Amino acid sequence: MSSELSVNHLLGIKYLKREDIELIFKTADHFKEVINRPIKKVPSLRDITIANLFFENSTRTRLSFELAEKRLSADVINFSAASSSVKKGETLIDTVNNILSMKVDMVVMRHPNPGAGIFLSKHVNASIINAGDGAHEHPTQALLDSYSIREKLGEVKGKKVVIVGDILHSRVALSNIFALQLQGAEVKVCGPKTLLPKYIESLGVEVETNLRKALEWCDVANMLRVQNERMDISYFPSTREYVKQFGLNKKLLESLDKEIVIMHPGPINRGVEITSDVADSENAIILDQVQNGVAIRMAAIYLLASKIKQ
Amino acid sequence: MSSELSVNHLLGIKYLKREDIELIFKTADHFKEVINRPIKKVPSLRDITIANLFFENSTRTRLSFELAEKRLSADVINFSAASSSVKKGETLIDTVNNILSMKVDMVVMRHPNPGAGIFLSKHVNASIINAGDGAHEHPTQALLDSYSIREKLGEVKGKKVVIVGDILHSRVALSNIFALQLQGAEVKVCGPKTLLPKYIESLGVEVETNLRKALEWCDVANMLRVQNERMDISYFPSTREYVKQFGLNKKLLESLDKEIVIMHPGPINRGVEITSDVADSENAIILDQVQNGVAIRMAAIYLLASKIKQ
Amino acid sequence: MSSELSVNHLLGIKYLKREDIELIFKTADHFKEVINRPIKKVPSLRDITIANLFFENSTRTRLSFELAEKRLSADVINFSAASSSVKKGETLIDTVNNILSMKVDMVVMRHPNPGAGIFLSKHVNASIINAGDGAHEHPTQALLDSYSIREKLGEVKGKKVVIVGDILHSRVALSNIFALQLQGAEVKVCGPKTLLPKYIESLGVEVETNLRKALEWCDVANMLRVQNERMDISYFPSTREYVKQFGLNKKLLESLDKEIVIMHPGPINRGVEITSDVADSENAIILDQVQNGVAIRMAAIYLLASKIKQ
Repeated sequence: MSSELSVNHLLGIKYLKREDIELIFKTADHFKEVINRPIKKVPSLRDITIANLFFENSTRTRLSFELAEKRLSADVINFSAASSSVKKGETLIDTVNNILSMKVDMVVMRHPNPGAGIFLSKHVNASIINAGDGAHEHPTQALLDSYSIREKLGEVKGKKVVIVGDILHSRVALSNIFALQLQGAEVKVCGPKTLLPKYIESLGVEVETNLRKALEWCDVANMLRVQNERMDISYFPSTREYVKQFGLNKKLLESLDKEIVIMHPGPINRGVEITSDVADSENAIILDQVQNGVAIRMAAIYLLASKIKQ
Repeated sequence: MSSELSVNHLLGIKYLKREDIELIFKTADHFKEVINRPIKKVPSLRDITIANLFFENSTRTRLSFELAEKRLSADVINFSAASSSVKKGETLIDTVNNILSMKVDMVVMRHPNPGAGIFLSKHVNASIINAGDGAHEHPTQALLDSYSIREKLGEVKGKKVVIVGDILHSRVALSNIFALQLQGAEVKVCGPKTLLPKYIESLGVEVETNLRKALEWCDVANMLRVQNERMDISYFPSTREYVKQFGLNKKLLESLDKEIVIMHPGPINRGVEITSDVADSENAIILDQVQNGVAIRMAAIYLLASKIKQ
Repeated sequence: MSSELSVNHLLGIKYLKREDIELIFKTADHFKEVINRPIKKVPSLRDITIANLFFENSTRTRLSFELAEKRLSADVINFSAASSSVKKGETLIDTVNNILSMKVDMVVMRHPNPGAGIFLSKHVNASIINAGDGAHEHPTQALLDSYSIREKLGEVKGKKVVIVGDILHSRVALSNIFALQLQGAEVKVCGPKTLLPKYIESLGVEVETNLRKALEWCDVANMLRVQNERMDISYFPSTREYVKQFGLNKKLLESLDKEIVIMHPGPINRGVEITSDVADSENAIILDQVQNGVAIRMAAIYLLASKIKQ
C-alpha cells in the first residue's frame, strides 16, 4: 500500500483511487486509537495552520473538523460567511487569497455552490478539503460512512448498501455512491421518484422504489435526513406520505428475516425517516459514524499535510 | 473535609451538600492564586475535552467558563444554538449525544428551559454543568457570590443577606437562596410584590418590601439586574417607580448607620437598580465577583473532572 | 534606537514617535522571519491573555490579530457585540472592566465611535490596541502599509504616496497620512471633492483631483475601497462616474512613463477602484500587505506586552 495520497486536495470521492481510501482508513485506525486514550492529542501538525471556511452553517461538520484539527495540534482559525467581507462583495478567490497570505496551509470549506472547492483548488496555493459543496460531494462523510461499515461488517467489498431518501439534493448520497462502488460494494437507491436524479442509473446504481424490497436486499441501509425546509416544494411528497412509504420503523425492521445495519448522517428527524426505536436500536451505528468522523478527518488532514511538508 | 464532590454533575445548588461547597471554595482558593500569577495556567486537564453549549446568549458567563477551561488546559469547543442543527429540528439528546460521540467529557450548558440540565444528565454519558436553566438555577453564580462574601467578610455563616429585585424570574436569586441557607446565612428578599414568587416563604425566606428596612437589617445586599426587556409586561412596575422604591443610591447607603457590602451579578443598569456612585464605591465587590467567577468555575470543572478520571 | 515604545497603548499613529515606528518595524522584521518558518510560533506571550472586542464586524482584521496573538502563544478570547451584554444596555467601561476582571492583560478593540479606544484607555487598567474607531484611526493598517512600502522600495522617507478614494470616511487614509508624514514621505490625496474632508490641507496634504496627474507624481498609489454601502448617499458620485474618474485600469497604468507600486487595504471591489488586471499585476503588493499585517500586529502586541510585564 502506498504511504501517500495520489491527490493534493480532498475535493470529492470521484478524484480518489481505491488505494487512497485504504490509506485513509488505515491512518484513521491509528487516530481512532488516539482519541480513545486519556490524552486524545498528537503533536503531528504543530507546524500547520488550518482555516475553516464555512459559507453555510453546519455545526456538526464544523465541530468534527475543529476537533480533528485540534487533536492534531494544528493552529485553527474559523471564518463564517455571516460576518465576513464576502458580504462586502469580495470574490471567493480574493477572500481565500487573503486568508492564505496570513500563512495558512490548508482550507476546509463548506460552500453552497457545487464545484466551489474544485474551482478554488485551481486558483490558490493551499490544500483544500471539501466539507460539502451544494448538492455535489461531501467526501469526508462518505469516507466515515464506509469506514463505519468496514468497522461493523469487516469489509465494504461485496456488501449491499441501500441509500434511502432525497437522493436528488444529497451530496451525502452522491459521495457515498462513488465511495461504495470504488470499494466494490453494490449500491441501490430508494426514494420517491421525484427525488431521484435522472442520471442515477448511468452511475450503475439500481433504483428500488419499494422500501421493503430494498431492505430485504441490503446488508446496510443509509437513511438520509428528510429536509423539512424542502417540504413546501411542489414535487416533494407530504411528510405523511413520505413516512408511510419510506420511513423505517421497528415493525418493518423486525419483519425482515435478517439483521441489517442502520446508518444516518444526522441530524435525525425522529419519527420521519426513522422512528426513535430504530435510531436507538442495536442495529443503528449512527453515533459510531459521528465518532469515526473525527478519526477520518484527522486521517485526511494528516495525509494531506504530509504532502505539503514535502 | 472530603476530597471529592458528592455529585457527578453541577446541576443546581439544591443537589449539593455543605461539604461540597467547602471543597469547591478551598479548591477555588488555589486557582485564585494561580490566575494571579504571571502564567495563569495549570496543565491539570490536558486530557479533558469540554463543550460549551449555549442555547441562549450569555457573553459574560461563556467567557468566564471558557477562560476557566483554557486555564486548566482543557480542550474547548463552543456550540451556540443560533447556528446549529437545533434549528433543523433535532432533539436536545441527539444534539448532545452527537457532540459526546466526538469524545467530549464534559458539557457546560445554558438553556432557556428549567430542568434542561437535569433531564440531560439522566440521558447522556457526560458530566453536566448547568450554566443557567431558565428561571431555575445558576449554581456557579451562587457559588461565586458566596465565595465573594466569604472573601470579604471571612465567612458566610451567620451573615444576613438581602436579595433585591425581580426574584420571580431570577435563577440567580433561587440558587443564592439555596447556597446561603446551606451555609447558615440568613436570607431575606426585597422587591415589588408582583415580582416575588408565591412559594418564597415556604423556602424559609422572609419578605421585606421596604428597601430601607431591608438594608438596615442586612450585612450584604445583592442587587439583581432589572430586566428592561420585561418592562412592558403589565405586572411590572414602571422603571421610574422601581428606581424610586427599590433603586439603591449613595444617599440611601450613607444614611444607614453601618457599612454593608453591595453585590450585583451584572450586567448593571446604572441608574436603575443601583446608581453609578454606589456601583463604583468601596462597598461594592462587583468586579471581585467577576474575578472569583473564573476561580470558582475552574474549581467546579476540576473537581468534576477528577470524578470522570476515576 | 530605543528598545521600548514611548506609549502604553496603540490608539493612533498620532500618538507615536518616529522611533516607535522604527522599533515596530525592526520587531516585525523578526516576526516576519518567524511566520515563514515551518513552525510559525514563538512562546513569548504565554503569560498574556488578550481579548478581541469587535463591536463591528471585520473578518480580515480580526483573523489577522487572532493569528498574531496565537503565534505569540498568548491566550485569546473573542467577544463580538452581536451576542453580547452590550445589547442589554451595559456601558462600554462596564463591559471592558468585566472582561479585565477575568485577568485579561490586553484589549484589541474595533468600535464604530471615533475615540472609543482613547476614552477606554483613560478608564480601564489594560493595554489597548485600536483596531479601527469609526472614521478616526486604524493604526496597525497604516503601520503595515508603511512597512510594505519600506519592504518594496527600501525606505519610506522621501517617497511620494497618493491615497485615492473616499478620504472623508476613511480611518485608513487618516492613519496613513500621519504615518507617512512622520516618516518623511510626501502625501497627496485624490478623490471626488465631496469625499475629501475640509481640514485635509491643514494636515499638510495636497489635493489632486486628477487621477492621471496624481499617478504621474507618485511612487506609490494606495487605492481605497469604494464603500458600496455609501453609494446611495446623495453627495457621492455614481459608481459609473467614480470608475471613470478615479478607477485605476491597466491601460492608464501602462500609459505612465514609470513603474508605480499599487496598494489596497482590501476587500477589493474588482472593476471599481481597480480592475482585476491591476490588482493581480506585478506592481500590486496587496497580498504582501496582508502577510505583513500579521507580522506588524505581532510586533505591536509584543512590544506593548513588554511594557505590561515591567
